[in-house]
Amino acid sequence: MNIVLLEPTEIRTDGSAELTDVRARHLERVLKAGVGSTVRIGVVDGPLGVGTVSDVSNSRVTLMCALETAIPERPRVDLLLALPRPKVLRRLWAQLAALGVGQIILTNAEKVERDYFDTHLLQTIGYRPLLIEGLQQARDTRLPVVSVHKQFRKLVEDDLDTLCPFGRRLVAHPQPDAPGVLAALDDQPDRVLVAIGPEGGWNAFELGLLEERGFAPVSMGPRTLATTTACIALLTLAHAGLHSSHSGRFS
Amino acid sequence: MNIVLLEPTEIRTDGSAELTDVRARHLERVLKAGVGSTVRIGVVDGPLGVGTVSDVSNSRVTLMCALETAIPERPRVDLLLALPRPKVLRRLWAQLAALGVGQIILTNAEKVERDYFDTHLLQTIGYRPLLIEGLQQARDTRLPVVSVHKQFRKLVEDDLDTLCPFGRRLVAHPQPDAPGVLAALDDQPDRVLVAIGPEGGWNAFELGLLEERGFAPVSMGPRTLATTTACIALLTLAHAGLHSSHSGRFS
Repeated sequence: MNIVLLEPTEIRTDGSAELTDVRARHLERVLKAGVGSTVRIGVVDGPLGVGTVSDVSNSRVTLMCALETAIPERPRVDLLLALPRPKVLRRLWAQLAALGVGQIILTNAEKVERDYFDTHLLQTIGYRPLLIEGLQQARDTRLPVVSVHKQFRKLVEDDLDTLCPFGRRLVAHPQPDAPGVLAALDDQPDRVLVAIGPEGGWNAFELGLLEERGFAPVSMGPRTLATTTACIALLTLAHAGLHSSHSGRFS
Repeated sequence: MNIVLLEPTEIRTDGSAELTDVRARHLERVLKAGVGSTVRIGVVDGPLGVGTVSDVSNSRVTLMCALETAIPERPRVDLLLALPRPKVLRRLWAQLAALGVGQIILTNAEKVERDYFDTHLLQTIGYRPLLIEGLQQARDTRLPVVSVHKQFRKLVEDDLDTLCPFGRRLVAHPQPDAPGVLAALDDQPDRVLVAIGPEGGWNAFELGLLEERGFAPVSMGPRTLATTTACIALLTLAHAGLHSSHSGRFS
């Protein structure tokens, strides 16, 4: 936890916030925060700031919050992901939020098992705490916008242009002549939506539909990666491709 | 499992190999392999090839192995990693092997807890199956060379030049003016050794010693990532930086 994230409703009109949950325990036990200590804070989808501990009593920590005026930029990378199995999904949420994703669009595909959709990890109450955990790790406040789509074709044909009207579209596909992610972002588009298939890959229909709707195939090289590793690798390359300042060579 | 890896000793002089373990079950149950089926195989630290099923009986699968002559190139990225806690390490082994690492050098650091070294995951019998799992995922045969060092200073001052005599050395460090990984590999060195600290970071002494021994600081941007995510992200960028053909733009 590298910042403490607060919900907007937790900050009272006098700028104070009272924590009683795991965040209070983290402040007390890990950060050894006492009255007068300052900690980095943020407001979900709002600004970063600094909290000064004004009271610690009965497992309750009170912070006086001083917030910046600017709100962190929404991450410029979006993810379209064939729903992985719940065990993988559970570990993925925090990592995706930590890497920075504007939107997480989960979809069905032929090689996605139907019962994957039954997991509580697709309900807000299931995934939101995990996303918050990732944001607190990465010192970001911008919560990824999540949507779940049980019909791949409807998603791609009808909904995607509304969900993601702008930006480059890439689909990871092991195709020897496909360019790498960095090459595909050579012209520095404003945003990028990266599509990652199920463990067994997209089928021909799905890949065809994606290409028809503007997704350009990109290759990750000859190594086949498991979903978690592939997501982290692709999002990392997408960020490196967009943010010229990260590499110094894309200016 | 995208290839079945065999130990060199498992291949008999007539080119056959008999599998009775989890690989046999995978061939039978997941791949539904019967007599005449072909499967992609590889020999640990040896060539890739094709196995033709010649017999299936009593949970025993016999393959006739046709091996290529060339051996895959050893990955040109090495990793120096402050030992993470066992739970993290357990998940990391396969992912590191899948991403491609020539050498994994695990070290102590101030912020590494002493008892992390007690885990069976640091013994060959503990980690080797996990590395093999990662290679089978990525269709590679080159097993990362692992070494464990309880004395950071001795490692860096005395042993590192023998372990890694060639190549660029980078240390991930959140320093605003440090270049990104891609920029630091702009001149396409032959190999790169990436150092990743413990969750709390390297201390000043450790960072100083690394810099003294040729490690140039690189930044991953403003987001602080957990060890697993950071390892995957850094290794991905290191590969992208070295392998110009992956991106098409580094030629």
